[in-house]
Amino acid sequence: MEFDLSQSIALLVRTPAALNTLLSGLPDAWTTHNEGEGTWTVTEVIAHLIECEHTNWMPRAKSILQSTEPQPFASFDREGYKQDNQVRSLPQRLDEFARIRATSLDELRALNLQPTDFNRRGVHSVFGPVTLSQLLSTWTVHDMTHLHQISRILAHQYREAVGPWSQYLGVLHCNGHSA
Amino acid sequence: MEFDLSQSIALLVRTPAALNTLLSGLPDAWTTHNEGEGTWTVTEVIAHLIECEHTNWMPRAKSILQSTEPQPFASFDREGYKQDNQVRSLPQRLDEFARIRATSLDELRALNLQPTDFNRRGVHSVFGPVTLSQLLSTWTVHDMTHLHQISRILAHQYREAVGPWSQYLGVLHCNGHSA
Repeated sequence: MEFDLSQSIALLVRTPAALNTLLSGLPDAWTTHNEGEGTWTVTEVIAHLIECEHTNWMPRAKSILQSTEPQPFASFDREGYKQDNQVRSLPQRLDEFARIRATSLDELRALNLQPTDFNRRGVHSVFGPVTLSQLLSTWTVHDMTHLHQISRILAHQYREAVGPWSQYLGVLHCNGHSA
Repeated sequence: MEFDLSQSIALLVRTPAALNTLLSGLPDAWTTHNEGEGTWTVTEVIAHLIECEHTNWMPRAKSILQSTEPQPFASFDREGYKQDNQVRSLPQRLDEFARIRATSLDELRALNLQPTDFNRRGVHSVFGPVTLSQLLSTWTVHDMTHLHQISRILAHQYREAVGPWSQYLGVLHCNGHSA
């Protein structure tokens, strides 16, 4: 489907609550292990989602709207969440994600965007010109790519326990498709 | 990690509520489209999860426990949900999944399984002997494989809308890893 602001918000508003329902109170055995060296735990994924709200989605949307000529985005470090040295529990991080997402969506709605705004552009350091609608679509799909990752991390913890059924469980054969 | 009944139940009990939080009330544009010919919509995935509760998990667990010698499982049709011709909305299906999952877990707890039970075996038509712990682990990972699929189906609807960001969004490059 084509980009639609209300459809995007409908999904963006649900992600924090869905993650909270799935993960809050889940035993540490599921949430504090990763998929092997260089991979993330569920807790680290939530930290990354929080970092993206702080530095990525609405900051870039505002950057696009603040200038008549497309401007380069500030760079984004996908490991940037590691610079936050405060130790927080997973429930605390889930609450923080819910709060900051709600703030982001309040800001988005307050922009009162019109159809012509969605074609306004910024400049990505790798891709070059990108539109506001592509940025907002990416925000939405980014939630899904990390839900996809979280389901995979959880499944991974039972990789051996399922025995021969492994071959029928696609999630156990996913490598994340990282570029 | 090794199979653990309480850890498994902790995840199994959360899946219906997490899916309800993510999907209930989401616009049809997200939930009534699939990923192309021969693939499922989100609504069909929930129907499949319901069918599995009816014919797969607890029936197979009981089959293992009812006999001293490993017995073949009744066959399972992963497209079996299509035989249910009643038209139900996605919220109705989500409610039905929550109800039947709660019943399944009540039955599982009532079995009061002991450590030696987990090594008891049934016979899978393809794999041969499988243990109760492998069956219960597979039930848990099966939830995750379909959460993985649902995140992918939702993301797919914005496959074009994200523009060049597609290359950074792993979920858009997942083919489901079906055997």
